[in-house]
Amino acid sequence: MSRTGRRRGAGGTREKILAAARTHFGETGYDGATIRGIAAVAGVDPALIPHYFGSKEGVFKAAVEFPVDPAEFIPQLLEPGVDGLGERLVLFFLETWDSPAGASLLGLIRSVVSSDLAADMMREFVTREVLGRIAAAIKLDHPQLRASLVATQLVGLAMLRYVIRVQALKNASRKELSRWIGPNIQRYLTGPVTTLSGR
Amino acid sequence: MSRTGRRRGAGGTREKILAAARTHFGETGYDGATIRGIAAVAGVDPALIPHYFGSKEGVFKAAVEFPVDPAEFIPQLLEPGVDGLGERLVLFFLETWDSPAGASLLGLIRSVVSSDLAADMMREFVTREVLGRIAAAIKLDHPQLRASLVATQLVGLAMLRYVIRVQALKNASRKELSRWIGPNIQRYLTGPVTTLSGR
Repeated sequence: MSRTGRRRGAGGTREKILAAARTHFGETGYDGATIRGIAAVAGVDPALIPHYFGSKEGVFKAAVEFPVDPAEFIPQLLEPGVDGLGERLVLFFLETWDSPAGASLLGLIRSVVSSDLAADMMREFVTREVLGRIAAAIKLDHPQLRASLVATQLVGLAMLRYVIRVQALKNASRKELSRWIGPNIQRYLTGPVTTLSGR
Repeated sequence: MSRTGRRRGAGGTREKILAAARTHFGETGYDGATIRGIAAVAGVDPALIPHYFGSKEGVFKAAVEFPVDPAEFIPQLLEPGVDGLGERLVLFFLETWDSPAGASLLGLIRSVVSSDLAADMMREFVTREVLGRIAAAIKLDHPQLRASLVATQLVGLAMLRYVIRVQALKNASRKELSRWIGPNIQRYLTGPVTTLSGR
């Protein structure tokens, strides 16, 4: 199948694993997928997958070209503590979108919106690896709901600034947006439960 | 072209105008489109378009199957004043998505994300007819930016609850979500400018 015969071995194996991972994640969803299952589809030794990609999360990230690694960036953002986390999250999010990685994120949003299968995979990955990590850092009630509310604000920001390209949001600087949006994210992270409050 | 010959006249003209409107809006964008231009594409008397659809906004809403009319719902939401507008907006938004109209909104999100042309048309329509009306009611600095920030929160809520279907947001009631999200929207609408504050 190779046109030139170059880059067999390592390169070919890596690509074979990624193709198998896309098939296997598509069939089982993120939560149901296993290293062993991907290896079976690829017809390779299961030990090769941790060797190339570290973990199930790593092979997923590579298979869907998710441009940042939640196992790295979330601990970094959380490291200074929960104070100011809202603004740090917005700044990091906008810096990623404004970097070359933004093209991959746009592709991911497009596939998630157009395909239920992609939406299922991405939901499980984001719930477990992104929201789960943030939720674990919130020492408060409703951690999953709080983390999900944070995600609504960030995804909506990406939709209006990068997909629909609303002028007022395109024109605002990252710093300016982080000052408007950061406190709202902070409220989701650390504000009191409002559901029981009267009106 | 009609298979049975039924429903010529009024029905046929209405459909002919809608087909022409989709072509014309697609070519010129929402802002550039005119009643006269749509009539020319449809080959009908321009006076028929206000007769069937009221206005350019009305024909656009019908052409893209936008399920609610901003000229109706925004004045209703604003009528009790700006106090509590955040929670009212979230409740109205969720009620619309949970109604049969939700299917149309899902279709609109899908076309906006997959097509730059649809994104351009929807951006101009939403900027002028939705955000413009809300901005006009905000007697404060940065009305367009504030209205756009409100839109980021609502669009992101729709993305995570109805497109990606994150469990914590699916499980929350409309009332509960409006209490979490309403105050954040209220802050965008009426909070002090944060961009000049020191940190």
